[in-house]
Amino acid sequence: MLDAMTLAEALTIDDMRAAHARIKPHINRTPILQSQYLNELTGAQLFFKCENFQEAGAFKVRGACNAVFGLTDEAAQRGVCTHSSGNHALSLSYAAGRRGIPCNVVMPRTAPQAKKDAVRRYGGIITECEPSTTSREAVFAEVQARTGGEFVHPYNDPRVICGQATCSAEMLEQTDGLDIVVAPIGGGGMISGTCLTLSNLSPETKIIAAEPEQADDAYRSFKAGRIIADDAPETIADGLKVPLKENTWYFVRNYVNDIQTASEQEIIDAMKITWKHLRIVMEPSCAVPLAVILKNPETYRGKRVGVVVTGGNVDLDKLPWLAR
Amino acid sequence: MLDAMTLAEALTIDDMRAAHARIKPHINRTPILQSQYLNELTGAQLFFKCENFQEAGAFKVRGACNAVFGLTDEAAQRGVCTHSSGNHALSLSYAAGRRGIPCNVVMPRTAPQAKKDAVRRYGGIITECEPSTTSREAVFAEVQARTGGEFVHPYNDPRVICGQATCSAEMLEQTDGLDIVVAPIGGGGMISGTCLTLSNLSPETKIIAAEPEQADDAYRSFKAGRIIADDAPETIADGLKVPLKENTWYFVRNYVNDIQTASEQEIIDAMKITWKHLRIVMEPSCAVPLAVILKNPETYRGKRVGVVVTGGNVDLDKLPWLAR
Repeated sequence: MLDAMTLAEALTIDDMRAAHARIKPHINRTPILQSQYLNELTGAQLFFKCENFQEAGAFKVRGACNAVFGLTDEAAQRGVCTHSSGNHALSLSYAAGRRGIPCNVVMPRTAPQAKKDAVRRYGGIITECEPSTTSREAVFAEVQARTGGEFVHPYNDPRVICGQATCSAEMLEQTDGLDIVVAPIGGGGMISGTCLTLSNLSPETKIIAAEPEQADDAYRSFKAGRIIADDAPETIADGLKVPLKENTWYFVRNYVNDIQTASEQEIIDAMKITWKHLRIVMEPSCAVPLAVILKNPETYRGKRVGVVVTGGNVDLDKLPWLAR
Repeated sequence: MLDAMTLAEALTIDDMRAAHARIKPHINRTPILQSQYLNELTGAQLFFKCENFQEAGAFKVRGACNAVFGLTDEAAQRGVCTHSSGNHALSLSYAAGRRGIPCNVVMPRTAPQAKKDAVRRYGGIITECEPSTTSREAVFAEVQARTGGEFVHPYNDPRVICGQATCSAEMLEQTDGLDIVVAPIGGGGMISGTCLTLSNLSPETKIIAAEPEQADDAYRSFKAGRIIADDAPETIADGLKVPLKENTWYFVRNYVNDIQTASEQEIIDAMKITWKHLRIVMEPSCAVPLAVILKNPETYRGKRVGVVVTGGNVDLDKLPWLAR
């Protein structure tokens, strides 16, 4: 097996381009939306890349399709498996369904019902675990041993990182250049892909990762210069609870300009503002970028800012601003 | 004054083209979204034209901008005024704000708070009336006499119809042709514009209007061959309570292929399905088309169907599927 560091370092912009060609028949070229109201509120020019409009409801379908459609026929026969807080599980189920191969996923029992329902709709088979990294990895080891499927890690996999990298390539094509791109950070797959693309195609664009205060392991890793992982952080941004791993840490450490954090209330407020003024259904995780933009206006004022809206799989019966 | 019938009959496709050129700097070219899930559910190929992504949150900004930016400088000085169940009020306020002229609107006191807030945000001045056509017209006469502004009727105005007509022109450009276009019908402005454009540019495309059962005056007018108006119908689709008038009746009578209706529960179900699977925030009024598509599958199966998502100004604190 190759050294893990080597895997991330070896990725080139041609790997991203190959991924884009491979996945194009299976993904949506999602639109970019703008809002005069939100521009006035922030003093920036915001370009929202709506990955919530992917069929499976999240950018993760990019990496999942790249991994699934890059398998040899022989490897594909045995199917794929993964563990995921939700969107990777349903994106991998979607990709596997399109190729007609089995998909086993380990999900925390506390994952939103909407995400579990979607996994099953796409034909994925769910095994539940406790909502901690320890439990997830133990249950997954058992599932993988039993099924023999190809493991597609939700983010620490170069195939996945290359797939996610296609998102910012489209953002560059759809805008006349960007001063800053802000994306949420959980395990770091989207941010790593963003780094791969922008460092090659638009090195002057700054990359800022947005993270919940209550799950700020990436922020603390960035400051400390080494991976710090929490076992079971609690935040409404359920897509962002997982820790960095070596391949994503490589990109965060070398290419991310800053990591900014927001409180739970700031995330909920930004989520509601976006629903109201951009009129899109998006997850709490996607609201973290707007929350940090509103919190740090001096970073963004007068700038052209790309914002990755990462997913839209929400329990419509449990909206956070209506919680009692 | 010209005969009212003459106004609608005299409109040509060049009027639509002139409107499109006039309003382009002030509106968004909204994207079309698709969902494999909704296509499988309906057996049709659905193309959702997302007018909820207009800055003012509704297609009505097209007609409002065409009216406001078509005024002479002298007429513009006195401002504009109107009565509206909501989206026309805020669209006209938005258009007037962009031209820097005053805008007075009469709105039912029961209009959604989100719409009243938006009118005020764009600088519109609200006078409230009771939620009936009678009260609305009486209060409006007083406001118009007092302010002397140019009356821009929410739908029975050829300038407004020409503006709304630009929406289906974009739909034709954004798709490879459509077998059917379905749009909600209240006063008939969007449907009339759709008729103007499609009868000229794509006469083979069928036009179906979708209406709430509880405010089915257009349906009954269509069947009876004359305008039937209800004074104060009650439906969750608050944008669709108003009656046809002579200019819109001209188009409905001559170019609409059918009107289909849906119950309140069918509208709410279709609304929630769209939020969940298309991941957009849209009003109950916009859910009526999907509700009639789900109710009449034989009309749509195997067809390429354009669906106009008319607006997205929703009270996020009062979602109909969470009402107790």
